[in-house]
Amino acid sequence: MPNLPPSWTRPLSTPNAQSARLATERQQVLTKPPGSLGQLEQLAIQLAGVQGAEQPTVDPVQITVFAGDHGVCEEGVSAFPQEVTAQMIANFAGGGAAISVLANQLGALLEVVNLGTVGEVPGLPGVRNEQIAPATANLAVTNAMTEDQVCAALASGDAAAERAANAECRLFIGGDMGIGNTTSAAALACALLKATPEHLVGPGTGLDRAGVSHKAQVVARALARHGDSTDPLTVLASLGGFEIAALTGALLGCAARGIPVLVDGYIVSVAALVGVHQQPGLRDWLLFAHRSAEPGHARILDALDASPLLDLGMRLGEGSGAAVAVPLLRSACALHNTMASFTDAGVSNKNATS
Amino acid sequence: MPNLPPSWTRPLSTPNAQSARLATERQQVLTKPPGSLGQLEQLAIQLAGVQGAEQPTVDPVQITVFAGDHGVCEEGVSAFPQEVTAQMIANFAGGGAAISVLANQLGALLEVVNLGTVGEVPGLPGVRNEQIAPATANLAVTNAMTEDQVCAALASGDAAAERAANAECRLFIGGDMGIGNTTSAAALACALLKATPEHLVGPGTGLDRAGVSHKAQVVARALARHGDSTDPLTVLASLGGFEIAALTGALLGCAARGIPVLVDGYIVSVAALVGVHQQPGLRDWLLFAHRSAEPGHARILDALDASPLLDLGMRLGEGSGAAVAVPLLRSACALHNTMASFTDAGVSNKNATS
Repeated sequence: MPNLPPSWTRPLSTPNAQSARLATERQQVLTKPPGSLGQLEQLAIQLAGVQGAEQPTVDPVQITVFAGDHGVCEEGVSAFPQEVTAQMIANFAGGGAAISVLANQLGALLEVVNLGTVGEVPGLPGVRNEQIAPATANLAVTNAMTEDQVCAALASGDAAAERAANAECRLFIGGDMGIGNTTSAAALACALLKATPEHLVGPGTGLDRAGVSHKAQVVARALARHGDSTDPLTVLASLGGFEIAALTGALLGCAARGIPVLVDGYIVSVAALVGVHQQPGLRDWLLFAHRSAEPGHARILDALDASPLLDLGMRLGEGSGAAVAVPLLRSACALHNTMASFTDAGVSNKNATS
Repeated sequence: MPNLPPSWTRPLSTPNAQSARLATERQQVLTKPPGSLGQLEQLAIQLAGVQGAEQPTVDPVQITVFAGDHGVCEEGVSAFPQEVTAQMIANFAGGGAAISVLANQLGALLEVVNLGTVGEVPGLPGVRNEQIAPATANLAVTNAMTEDQVCAALASGDAAAERAANAECRLFIGGDMGIGNTTSAAALACALLKATPEHLVGPGTGLDRAGVSHKAQVVARALARHGDSTDPLTVLASLGGFEIAALTGALLGCAARGIPVLVDGYIVSVAALVGVHQQPGLRDWLLFAHRSAEPGHARILDALDASPLLDLGMRLGEGSGAAVAVPLLRSACALHNTMASFTDAGVSNKNATS
């Protein structure tokens, strides 16, 4: 077996139950009816647990966008041409992409990891060139990656988690860029969930009905070739993409280093699904940002027992849905950490006599 | 008729269709699949229309919390004692309440308008004392307010809108504080929508099942006394509260001055419902922040044809749900205003040949 990062197999630690308990108690004495901040209360408590701190924080935030091209594009599965992957890497670096704008607004660290594109990517500030190959192989006809390539992608993801740990980041967001990657993600989810393509294949960047139907047939061919294996490494090699494998590595790497992850939409959720199949304990370290407009996302969220914070009909990828949700986490922490208690503020509590 | 603010009857202007059209065109050329930012795209377009600017912005934001006590508390309709209204005003001023924390985090202007509380409110920074009476009358047995009182409350709200205009605010948030005010709001909504109390009465700050049932009976008594009128001024006087009437005045006052309003939860939505019954054109100036956990909110949102941005199970009031949603508007504006176009970034557009 080639070099797998330790987080692939080494047992993950569990969140700090004592911190979560103290945070739960704290929520009960703040000047509001108990439960009236809804999911913001649960967010603060979950963050307290994973950070091992009664008063959690989400800053600094690191956003790493993993990019890679997909051989399956030769089957005509995307509304956009394959050259867009490399062009968008330049757009990320130039500040013009959605995730660039959002990262700048948040004051988050943004980096792009190029794992292999058909188009040429020059040296660009903020872009790490960790090219594995120009693209994966066409998963409809053969394994998308060799085991060496999967391991290289997992290691790239793990290295991003290591950089987040070194920068003392309190929250990690992974993003994706790769024309054709909803085809790969749908195939991965079908293989792991034993689902049919019709339930998981959607329009991606904007296929019409006929395009979606064709894409589902491509995924069906891939699954017939793939067979029955649900072993995460085998499934990734057979049906994955460089950026999806790297995201799986990044998520596991963050969990191994005690950094919570705010999961973006369809692609990152599939990477999380692969990671949870390998290490069920990963789930404890994940928060879910949004419900994608990509129809298959619902099934993947169900499999992960996830109730995302937002449902805004977004379907862009890049980590953009997660970035948009960061202020909710900041608000949850600010409320949790700085609201007055009933005692401190001299406010009568529920059912007190007047 | 006592002095009604001009915005009560003077025709409201309509949003700028040209700005909205230019914003719609702009969204089509940004480097993303069309529609892939979901509701954030619609938000930017709506804001462009109401602000008459192709590139909208939401800052500065003014948050005005209106507080008032309710005579109907003598019926035992709340889980919290009435003295909490005045205590919470002090907590707002002291920075310990949820809305204080959120306003500080947002860098928003926060002011509290005390329209009348049973408990004593000393002079406090950031608190305007515009006392109408210590509390409304018990709406279960008599009109909650005189027409003079309604007009005074509407005028207080209108004055808050005037301050927002003077401060060149681009977004207004109204908040509420008043023990017992979900009873008043439910009664108002029942009267305007010809609905039964069971559909609109909920637990408020935390009533149990028996408490909700009792509260519904109190609302039913109020509605039997009130009769059939759906005239907004009559309904407000009969079933309203100082803070709810002031919110209605603030919303209409903002629309009259071209300031969009981000509507909070149950109470503010009912104030909006009253306002829209008086001036249907108000609806164009409203954005809806969140779906409250208060069950009756869904029916009110339907009546307003509103699809809120957030559904986090919040039910605190104070404007807190709207404050939590402000970063979504900021993100929508930043993406709209600063993302690169396909041409500028040299990115191939959909269905271009590769």
